[in-house]
Amino acid sequence: MLLALNCGSSSIKFKLFQLSDLFVLISGSATRVDVGGQTPVLKVVVHHRDARHEECEREEEKEHTEYDAVFQRVIEHIETSVSKHFQSSSDGSRPRDVIKIVAHRIVHGGTETQPMAIWPGHEQSLTKLDKLGQFAPLHNHRAVEVVKSCLQHLPESRQVLLFDTLFHQTIQPHIYTYPLTAPESAPFIPLRKYGAHGLSYASVLSSMSSYLGKPASHINIIVAHLGSGASVCAIRDGKSLDTSMGLTPLDGLPGGTRSGSVDPALIFHHTKDAANDADFKGTNLSKGEMVLNKEGGFQALSGTSDFGVISSRATSSRVAGSEGPSQAERDAAKLTYDLFIDRILNYIGAYVFKILGGSPSGSPNPEGRSLDGIVFSGGIGEKGWQLRQDLGAYFAWLGCWVDNARNEAVGTEKDENGKEKVVYEISKEGSKVKLFVCMTDEETQCAITAKELKID
Amino acid sequence: MLLALNCGSSSIKFKLFQLSDLFVLISGSATRVDVGGQTPVLKVVVHHRDARHEECEREEEKEHTEYDAVFQRVIEHIETSVSKHFQSSSDGSRPRDVIKIVAHRIVHGGTETQPMAIWPGHEQSLTKLDKLGQFAPLHNHRAVEVVKSCLQHLPESRQVLLFDTLFHQTIQPHIYTYPLTAPESAPFIPLRKYGAHGLSYASVLSSMSSYLGKPASHINIIVAHLGSGASVCAIRDGKSLDTSMGLTPLDGLPGGTRSGSVDPALIFHHTKDAANDADFKGTNLSKGEMVLNKEGGFQALSGTSDFGVISSRATSSRVAGSEGPSQAERDAAKLTYDLFIDRILNYIGAYVFKILGGSPSGSPNPEGRSLDGIVFSGGIGEKGWQLRQDLGAYFAWLGCWVDNARNEAVGTEKDENGKEKVVYEISKEGSKVKLFVCMTDEETQCAITAKELKID
Repeated sequence: MLLALNCGSSSIKFKLFQLSDLFVLISGSATRVDVGGQTPVLKVVVHHRDARHEECEREEEKEHTEYDAVFQRVIEHIETSVSKHFQSSSDGSRPRDVIKIVAHRIVHGGTETQPMAIWPGHEQSLTKLDKLGQFAPLHNHRAVEVVKSCLQHLPESRQVLLFDTLFHQTIQPHIYTYPLTAPESAPFIPLRKYGAHGLSYASVLSSMSSYLGKPASHINIIVAHLGSGASVCAIRDGKSLDTSMGLTPLDGLPGGTRSGSVDPALIFHHTKDAANDADFKGTNLSKGEMVLNKEGGFQALSGTSDFGVISSRATSSRVAGSEGPSQAERDAAKLTYDLFIDRILNYIGAYVFKILGGSPSGSPNPEGRSLDGIVFSGGIGEKGWQLRQDLGAYFAWLGCWVDNARNEAVGTEKDENGKEKVVYEISKEGSKVKLFVCMTDEETQCAITAKELKID
Repeated sequence: MLLALNCGSSSIKFKLFQLSDLFVLISGSATRVDVGGQTPVLKVVVHHRDARHEECEREEEKEHTEYDAVFQRVIEHIETSVSKHFQSSSDGSRPRDVIKIVAHRIVHGGTETQPMAIWPGHEQSLTKLDKLGQFAPLHNHRAVEVVKSCLQHLPESRQVLLFDTLFHQTIQPHIYTYPLTAPESAPFIPLRKYGAHGLSYASVLSSMSSYLGKPASHINIIVAHLGSGASVCAIRDGKSLDTSMGLTPLDGLPGGTRSGSVDPALIFHHTKDAANDADFKGTNLSKGEMVLNKEGGFQALSGTSDFGVISSRATSSRVAGSEGPSQAERDAAKLTYDLFIDRILNYIGAYVFKILGGSPSGSPNPEGRSLDGIVFSGGIGEKGWQLRQDLGAYFAWLGCWVDNARNEAVGTEKDENGKEKVVYEISKEGSKVKLFVCMTDEETQCAITAKELKID
C-alpha cells in the first residue's frame, strides 16, 4: 500500500492507496491541529471496491493535542481500518508494515529539481529541508517532523518527498528574478520566485487534460487555487509560466492569515523590530515575516479565517431583530470579500495577457494559442459559488458568462462510475473563454508521482 | 509670474509661467544632482511669444554640487533670464520678486485632501510633510528643503504644495487596504495604498480628454508612467481606480534603483539587520527600505539605471570585433528589459479587467464602458519606441496592433500652432483598443492647479 500525506499548517490530509492500481482504500483528514484554543477533529473514510458504500468515522480529539500526537492518532486509525477491512486474519504482518511507500507533500523544495527518496538511516537530506523551513515557515518544519516520525514508526516504508516548487521550474528568469543586488552574505538558496501549490496545479492540469481530451503539453489554462493558502498559476503549453507566490508562499494573494503581496516597505512602518527573531517553533523566522504570515489576511480584516463565513456575511441582508452578523461584521466581511476578488483579478488579468500575448521580444503569440479556460480549485475555489459568480462578472467583456445553474451544481454530481465528478464546466454554452471548477487532489498526485518515481 | 518646481531625487525640473495666461517663459532642468561621482548639468530654455525661436543655455556645474546649491543656481539662472528678457529696465523690482506663486510637486501628501498654501512665517505644516518623508524617502525631504529655501529667497511669493497622492483619493477601500492587523503603536498616517505620479496622471488625463474630445469624467484609460520611477494607473470615468505604487513609491514596477513589488519576506533573507536605521540624510529610514529603494531595479540587474542604454544593449546584435556591449552586458540588459515588460504587463493586464469588468458584487460593467486606450508617458514611455513595440505585441489578441511608423514618429511632430505635439496615436488604424503616447507635463499641471486654487 501507499500512503500519501499532506501536512499543512493546521491540518493533516491523507489517503491510503492500493499500490498496484492506486485504488483509494482509506481517506481522511485531521483539521484544527495545533490551532490555539481549538480541538482537533479527525475524520476517516473507508472505501470499498465492490460496493458503492463508504464507512465514515469522525472523532473529536479530547484536548488541544499537539501536531505529532495527532499524527500518531492518524496512523493508529489507518492501522485499525487496514486490519479490520483490508487484511486477512492469516496475514501475520503488522497492519502498518503493509505500507511500502509514504508520499509526502513538502511546500518548499528550494533548488531541488527532483522528488527525493529517503530510507531509515539516510536522514541527512532532512536537515536541508528543515532549513528551507525559513522560506515556508508554516509548513516545511512540520512536514519534516512527520517524515522523521514515519521513518521511526513505519520503518518498512520508503519516504518519498514531493515538492510544491517542482512544478514551477519552468518559470523563466525574467519572471522569477527579483531586481535586487546580491545579498552581502550568500543565502542558503538563490533569492528568487519558487512558487508553491505545484502538486495541486499538476493535479488540476492532469484532470483538465483528461476532461478536454488533449495532452497536457497542449493545455493553456489559468488556475486559481483558492484556499486558506491561495495562489494563481498561468499554465502555458502545460508548463508553469508564472505564479503568484514567490520566494515564500507569503507573496501574491492574501490567505487565511497571510497578507499576501503588500508594499515591501509596509512592514517596517508596522512592526518596528521587524528583523528580530520571532522565536517561532524553532524556525529561523523574523518577526516581520511572522506578522505578515500570521497576523494578516482574512483573519486580520474579518476576525475569522473561514472564507465561507466571510462570504455568507458579506452577501447576507440584515434582517431586523434577527441574530446573524452585526453591521460591523458584515462591513468587515464585505471589505474582505471585495478585496479578495480584487487581488485575484490582479493575477488572472495579468496571466490572460501573458498566455495570449506571446513571449517578450518575440512576435505576438506566434503559435496562435488560445486559452482553454480559467479554472477554480482549492477549498474556496471549489465551494465558493458566490465568489465564482462575482469574479465571473469581470469576464463578460471577453464573451464569457457564468451559468448560474451549472455554477451552483458544483460538487453535487457523480460521473458514470459513481465517483465524485472532478471537472465542472460553469460557463454558459457558447462562452468564448470557458470557466471550470476542478476538484484538486494533491494526495492522488503525490501517489501517482511517488509510484512512478525511478529510484537510483 | 508663476514658477513650477518639480524636485526629484536627482533632478530639479522647472517652468516659469506668465501668471495671466500660463504662457511658458522659461523652462529647464538640473540633472545628475547629488548623484555620487557625477557632475550636475543645468539647462535653461527661454521661450519667446512673438517668435518661433528659443534660446537655450546649458551649463555643467564645476563640482559635485549639493542639492540646495544647485537649486540656488537654478533661481539665479531664472533671475538672469527674467531680467534680460522679460523686465523693462524701468521696472525697479528685483527679478525674483515678480514671482508671485511657486507651485511645488510633492510626492507624498499622506492624508491631505487638498493642495496646501504656505506663506513666510507659517511653516509649521512643513514639519508634517517632512515627517511624511519616511514614506517617500527619495523625495519629500528634498522637496521640503526647497520649499524652505523658496520661503527664504522668494519672500514675495506664495508657496503652493501639490501632492502626487491627491489624484488617487478616489481609490476604494477594498483596493487601498492592506490585509494586516493594526500596528501596535498608531502610525503617523494610516498604512494603506496612497499611490504617486498623480500630477502626471492628471496631466495625461487632461491631454487625452482634449485629444479625444470628451470630458475627463467620461475617459477610461490605462496610463503607464514609465521613468526611472515608474507606475501604472487605471483611470475609470476620469478617476483613479487603482495604481501600482502603494504606501510608498517602492511598490509596483521596478525603477532605476527601486526593486518594485517583491515577496515582502525577501528583504529579511537579503539584509539581516533590515529594521536598523539606515542613517540616510536625516530621514527616519530603515536599512531594508534603503536597500529596496536604492540597491534594486535596473541598476542592480544591468549596472546602469539608464533604460535607454539597457534597451539599446538588449536589442543590439553583437558585431564581431566591434566595441559595443559585452555578451554579459547584453545578457543582463536583456533580462532587465524582459523583466520590465513582464512587470508592466502585470498591471496593464489586471487593469484592463478592472476597467472593463465592472464593480465587485455588482453587475458586469453595467454602464457598458469601453477602454479609450492604453497610454504611455514618462521618459521611458515617451522615448522607448522599442519597448512600446514589444509591449504592444501582447495586445494583438485584443485586436490591437502597434503601427511601427507611427510609433517611431513619436516626438518628432509639431501641432498646427508649431508647438510640440502632446498626444500621438501609435496603434494601427482600426485597432479595437488604441495605444497612445502622451507627453506628460507635471510642471504645467502644477501651474494650472496652483493658479486655480482658492485660498481661504
